[in-house]
Amino acid sequence: MNTLAQLKKYSAELVDLHHTLALMQWDQEVRMPRRAAEGRAGQFATLSGLVHRREVAPELGALLIQAEAQKESLSVEDRALVRVMRRSYDQNTRLPEEFVAEFSRLTSQAQMAWLEAREQSDFAIFQPLLERLVVMARQQAEYLGYAAHPYDALLDLYEEGLTTAQVESMFVELQAPLVAMVKRFAGRLATLSFAEPFALAGQEQFAQHLLVAMGFDFSRGCLARSAHPFTTTLGHHDRRITNRYAAKSLDFIFGALHEGGHALYEQGIAESLANSHLDDGVSLGIHESQSRFWENVVGRGRPFWQRFFPELQQAFPAQFAHTELDVFVRGINAVTPGLIRVDADELTYNLHVLIRFEIEKGLIEGSLEVGALPRVWRDKYRQYLGVEVESDADGVLQDIHWAHGSFGYFPTYTIGNLAAAQIWEAYKKYDPGFNQTLASGDLAKVKGWLAKEIHSHGSVYLPQELLVRVTGAPLSAKPFLAYLEEKFGTLAG
Amino acid sequence: MNTLAQLKKYSAELVDLHHTLALMQWDQEVRMPRRAAEGRAGQFATLSGLVHRREVAPELGALLIQAEAQKESLSVEDRALVRVMRRSYDQNTRLPEEFVAEFSRLTSQAQMAWLEAREQSDFAIFQPLLERLVVMARQQAEYLGYAAHPYDALLDLYEEGLTTAQVESMFVELQAPLVAMVKRFAGRLATLSFAEPFALAGQEQFAQHLLVAMGFDFSRGCLARSAHPFTTTLGHHDRRITNRYAAKSLDFIFGALHEGGHALYEQGIAESLANSHLDDGVSLGIHESQSRFWENVVGRGRPFWQRFFPELQQAFPAQFAHTELDVFVRGINAVTPGLIRVDADELTYNLHVLIRFEIEKGLIEGSLEVGALPRVWRDKYRQYLGVEVESDADGVLQDIHWAHGSFGYFPTYTIGNLAAAQIWEAYKKYDPGFNQTLASGDLAKVKGWLAKEIHSHGSVYLPQELLVRVTGAPLSAKPFLAYLEEKFGTLAG
Repeated sequence: MNTLAQLKKYSAELVDLHHTLALMQWDQEVRMPRRAAEGRAGQFATLSGLVHRREVAPELGALLIQAEAQKESLSVEDRALVRVMRRSYDQNTRLPEEFVAEFSRLTSQAQMAWLEAREQSDFAIFQPLLERLVVMARQQAEYLGYAAHPYDALLDLYEEGLTTAQVESMFVELQAPLVAMVKRFAGRLATLSFAEPFALAGQEQFAQHLLVAMGFDFSRGCLARSAHPFTTTLGHHDRRITNRYAAKSLDFIFGALHEGGHALYEQGIAESLANSHLDDGVSLGIHESQSRFWENVVGRGRPFWQRFFPELQQAFPAQFAHTELDVFVRGINAVTPGLIRVDADELTYNLHVLIRFEIEKGLIEGSLEVGALPRVWRDKYRQYLGVEVESDADGVLQDIHWAHGSFGYFPTYTIGNLAAAQIWEAYKKYDPGFNQTLASGDLAKVKGWLAKEIHSHGSVYLPQELLVRVTGAPLSAKPFLAYLEEKFGTLAG
Repeated sequence: MNTLAQLKKYSAELVDLHHTLALMQWDQEVRMPRRAAEGRAGQFATLSGLVHRREVAPELGALLIQAEAQKESLSVEDRALVRVMRRSYDQNTRLPEEFVAEFSRLTSQAQMAWLEAREQSDFAIFQPLLERLVVMARQQAEYLGYAAHPYDALLDLYEEGLTTAQVESMFVELQAPLVAMVKRFAGRLATLSFAEPFALAGQEQFAQHLLVAMGFDFSRGCLARSAHPFTTTLGHHDRRITNRYAAKSLDFIFGALHEGGHALYEQGIAESLANSHLDDGVSLGIHESQSRFWENVVGRGRPFWQRFFPELQQAFPAQFAHTELDVFVRGINAVTPGLIRVDADELTYNLHVLIRFEIEKGLIEGSLEVGALPRVWRDKYRQYLGVEVESDADGVLQDIHWAHGSFGYFPTYTIGNLAAAQIWEAYKKYDPGFNQTLASGDLAKVKGWLAKEIHSHGSVYLPQELLVRVTGAPLSAKPFLAYLEEKFGTLAG
């Protein structure tokens, strides 16, 4: 077998094992009985250990060196495979096994401490763990290496090539216009509230209906319930979604559209990339661009609801029989500066991310102490969003990311929002009748374009490279700001 | 780490990985989207391959030799662990890797051929595959080794220590009395039939209710739907059941009791055996004794339904509001010689097994040609059950076992039936008020005794040894025949 064939075989085996690990996590969230948790953690550790040994094997390192020597003669896809596997190999081998094990132990403890701290709304319970996590994250950055700023190394884990400087200039562009727009539009669109609960079975049925309309292929995926919605891949033809259903919330709709966006990306990856490291979305930012595209750009737009609101009314007459379309559309776009990121509207959302970015950068470069976080958090929420943080639970303890040891993850949410708007501009050039397309429910046209331009490529192109191919330009805040200006200007009349 | 600690660690890792493989199969039956099948097969093969390499590693062989040298100083449980791991190691290492791979390929093909053959009711489609399977099964017996008869080696795979001679003498005891009883009781008990379908949700709810009543612990297991009911173990605290729901059948009840019996066995294994090769039912025969105990001995008895029939009537008034308890109990015990094993009543069931045993023995020892099977099948069904086989689909093609490459499995069903009756005799000595116990719904008392006497021991004792411990005697057909005689004599008045 030649080098490339060997590498592909190696890749296929690792991908199979990662999909098996993903199945274990899926089952844990969706079906596993309560008392099985500890045993499952042990099983997961056993298989992860086996996988890790395969991932850092000198045999793989040698194969990569051989493949890299033949780089010039390889196809675009094969060259990308070598690149992606090299990146993963380097990430895995640069971290000493001892370090990985300790980090894993620490994050387990940190998650428990975080849960308790949040329950008691007391940051002091989480603080000593977070201090140790920050020390380890800095150490991680040193192991991984970086050119300009230690935080670069962590950003790169989630968004290949992303730098602190880029994130800073992105937020410089965003901050002032967003703060100004929030001031203009806050409270101008009336929120929706419901006296009657939505029947759970009806919610699930409607979510399923929207997923079918988007083009989610149920022969290659399924929809289940879990405490927190997520999308996961268990195989090339096995991309699964979960959603959740509360009594008086529209989250079932936007959860389905959001996870559906992620899942369409995964389902759209070319068959030729199956069973390889390329059979995956290219980065968290690009992935989020797809979920936000469907959740916000499409799913909070008037044209989409021209088509689907009558069906929503029919499904839930107690809530919507007497609601007008425009009231509904304004309601699902109401701008309300608040404390909680995951409940934020499109205007305020990125200000929540900005706050987390500034804090993470400070922690990693050492200009900010963990102990100062509750105060800094309150100050920044007052400054950027004009809201008063009353408790740690609704403040600095609201996100689980740091307890997971994830620093550098948050900015990918904003990248997703920006990229979604930039991709939407490109789509509008391709389909000038876009409003009619959505109003007629021809979502297949939208999905088809996304699949061809973005999804099918899997991880073949670098994230920033892919965006230039699709939109003709690198990531910019302008399309996003223009999109918000037009949308909210129109909605507010 | 001393030898035993190393062996336990090795055992725990293998058990973790086997539970992961079991999760893959569970998901495949319960949730996996249709088009994911091929990918899942690949994932399964990848992980199986890794597991197999761990299972035949010389390192394990060396550990076992060291542990065996210390045998005298070990506790009963530790000695059993060494024995069970030795047995598994020998089974795994005696079969050449080439052979295993070819056997696995052949059974994949055979299953597809069997499906098609059954659909077209044409044995000729399956025959060439079955011929090759028989050749390989004989080869397998040679690799595994045996003392008296090649079929012994295959029986031993499912029931440690079971021999052809034992199975033969078991059927000699059974055959004449069973044939005689079938003649006496066939058609004497009126069957039940239903004009109205059972609502599916109601069936599932009632099945769940019975499982709770039996003592199935839903914090350590769950109930799902699948095409064929089964029980599986995904962890010490994760024992799962599936059931199926047809419109006009009582299978939902007896499926739940049957699988519930298997699951109670698994859930009852002592915590001290967790994460080891001993954390498992000891053999297929003993396992089946537990499922048959609940399905037949308890679940088709009048006392059980004294307690539960009023609830069944309440759950399904359209079917049962005007049915009397005794009519119901006779109906669920109706004796009807038929063509299909899985639909058979308690009297005819073992005659179906006898036919398969005689055929398997003939195939493996070479006294019977595969090509003769349809004719032999017809002859034996006429002779033992007095029924005419009209088609291969309802005849020689009805079971999937041979397509799986499983020869020697069927006799464990009869062992289960016999052992269930023998265990019931022992229970009655422990609880002379057994009828009142069941009629009052005190199933916890029954479950508690089974757990203490059987379940808790996992695989510590050999199957035949366990039976002697519980019942004071080796496996015998007498308790079963006495149980049938009394039950059907009473029912038929």
